[in-house]
Amino acid sequence: MARREQLAQARQTITIIGGTGALGFGLALRWALAGVPVVIGSRSEDRAEEAATRLRERAREAGNGNAEIAAAENEEAAKRASTVVLAVPFRAQSENLNNLRYALQPGTVLIDATVPLAAALGGRATRTVGIWQGSAAQQAEEMAPRGVTVVSALHTVSANLLADPAKEIAEDVLIAGDDRKAKEQAAELIARIPGLRPVDCGELEVARIIEQLTALLISINKRHKIKHSGIRITGLPTEPAGS
Amino acid sequence: MARREQLAQARQTITIIGGTGALGFGLALRWALAGVPVVIGSRSEDRAEEAATRLRERAREAGNGNAEIAAAENEEAAKRASTVVLAVPFRAQSENLNNLRYALQPGTVLIDATVPLAAALGGRATRTVGIWQGSAAQQAEEMAPRGVTVVSALHTVSANLLADPAKEIAEDVLIAGDDRKAKEQAAELIARIPGLRPVDCGELEVARIIEQLTALLISINKRHKIKHSGIRITGLPTEPAGS
Repeated sequence: MARREQLAQARQTITIIGGTGALGFGLALRWALAGVPVVIGSRSEDRAEEAATRLRERAREAGNGNAEIAAAENEEAAKRASTVVLAVPFRAQSENLNNLRYALQPGTVLIDATVPLAAALGGRATRTVGIWQGSAAQQAEEMAPRGVTVVSALHTVSANLLADPAKEIAEDVLIAGDDRKAKEQAAELIARIPGLRPVDCGELEVARIIEQLTALLISINKRHKIKHSGIRITGLPTEPAGS
Repeated sequence: MARREQLAQARQTITIIGGTGALGFGLALRWALAGVPVVIGSRSEDRAEEAATRLRERAREAGNGNAEIAAAENEEAAKRASTVVLAVPFRAQSENLNNLRYALQPGTVLIDATVPLAAALGGRATRTVGIWQGSAAQQAEEMAPRGVTVVSALHTVSANLLADPAKEIAEDVLIAGDDRKAKEQAAELIARIPGLRPVDCGELEVARIIEQLTALLISINKRHKIKHSGIRITGLPTEPAGS
């Protein structure tokens, strides 16, 4: 394969760090069904393989027997794609970024989906904790190796909704980042999942607001006894999500 | 008028402190058009009267010549309704609440729409400042007289959109508060404005998230060069806003 093709291939592949967790698994399933090759990363290669096997079964059940789903230990997985999604609990974010500091390649777009719920410290899931840098995404930006660009996204779409392909999604994914091209790369991949509309919300610092929305939606779910609330933005020139 | 009728009348009347400002004026116009009697409050009775005159003209132009629009100095205005909306800039919130401490009657529902934009301190409108109590709404709760119940709402609907009755609205108004009945009273009034769906988001402390959304929408407006973005919540059992 020519270097150019390798790059094109790498560009469209997505690695999901935390791919065995609820959000990572749901995203992997939807992307795999949409024809995007995914690499499941986990601290343990065995657990990554196990999740990949389950994903292949789920994809086959949903009518896509050709889904490209690979598995690897996190550091190896991070090297295999130019888009890496960090979908780990807040309490594991720093440790993961630390472990990935030699694995993430320059030019990688790192999509940080971390939500600093107070639940990470034994508090409520309707509350968040303050982060010195302003947001989990800005913490990722500080910890990511030089040449890696952080985009904040995918905080509000429900893991359970993603994991059930029979359920229709029609909501927005709010994106923040300082690099337009990186945001476009993330947006294109997010838009591959039917029913999700990426919405660029501005600079990375706005992540401190977006990350709070998960706690807000959890509070709404609790108040209304529902499972999956989501966010939509009105007034945009693009077609609404799910239309 | 019998005491009972007076009470019923007072219950459905809305006083808007800051009714001469952009948000207050827009809300007053939409409520007046919907047949809800409004009292415009301002620090100056003259300015309140001037705004009321403009509102009556605008209501007549929009086909409602019978709109009930009164005007008064803030303290007097606060006594005339059992629902009082505080629609003032963040930098004026404390002063207004201080001035109203003997005017707000026990049993009043105070709808706080204050947004702590950093612009109040010369910063950006896409940023907010931290408030010791957690949110502007919680500051209002601390300063409001005993017997007055604070509901946080009306932060994200655009003042310009409200002020132009030709423009259709189809978005949600996120509400937070510790008292269900007070939230219901606020929700009923908000639902009187066509296209607005009130969404109970939980306890008053959640206001610290909701208040940030104005800064998020301002950032979205800026990024997409649009005037009026808004929020909608998906997954709720009620009909979507504007449907």
